[in-house]
Amino acid sequence: MIKKIEHLGIAVESIKDSLPVFEALLNNTSYKTEIVESEFVKTAFLNIGESKIELLEATDPKSAIAKFLDKHRSGFHHLAFDVDDIEEEIIRLESKGFTFIHSSPKEGADNKRIAFLHPKTTNGILIELCQDC
Amino acid sequence: MIKKIEHLGIAVESIKDSLPVFEALLNNTSYKTEIVESEFVKTAFLNIGESKIELLEATDPKSAIAKFLDKHRSGFHHLAFDVDDIEEEIIRLESKGFTFIHSSPKEGADNKRIAFLHPKTTNGILIELCQDC
Repeated sequence: MIKKIEHLGIAVESIKDSLPVFEALLNNTSYKTEIVESEFVKTAFLNIGESKIELLEATDPKSAIAKFLDKHRSGFHHLAFDVDDIEEEIIRLESKGFTFIHSSPKEGADNKRIAFLHPKTTNGILIELCQDC
Repeated sequence: MIKKIEHLGIAVESIKDSLPVFEALLNNTSYKTEIVESEFVKTAFLNIGESKIELLEATDPKSAIAKFLDKHRSGFHHLAFDVDDIEEEIIRLESKGFTFIHSSPKEGADNKRIAFLHPKTTNGILIELCQDC
């Protein structure tokens, strides 16, 4: 089942410039930065209640974040839900007509197994399922 | 202080068409729809963990949601944080250099007092503070 908002992913040009903004906003400091080499992104996480804000910076022009920032400005990128059984949720959602960008979970940032739904079936919103490893 | 993500606002062309998508996604039903006449919007809320998803449909071409949908497609509109003392947070954030669209709280949907930060000071993200009435 989907339990909560795990994180909200925000694409930024520069974590160095944007992290102080979000730290000031939330009156909190980032607990982690992490480079996800397979995705060509640098991430920074801030806790907010039971959820997190994840800032995403491209480390290479072929990163999905670089392509996003070419089209849009810095802004909302994706919404991630915490699930207890990712395979079960994939089966449930596919049975309801949702499609996945990759329907086999892969390794994501912050020690998670992840799968992204295709935004064409979710009102244009890029949605990620996350399960703790 | 900012306690949690109160809700994530998503602009949609039609709540009638989009609500079943989000209900199927979250495996949950909307607990409330509400028309906010002062903002020319119809809203529908779904619970997710300690937070909510708020779908927003314009009820008039002069609604901010209608203007948003003219520029963008259906998608992320704003991020709302739950605060315990909205006046205190406004003072704290203004002292850090953030600016507000309206710095006196006004009445919002779902029985809240609200204030919106100007996106020019928040990396392009429209952010709302909410306090329970």
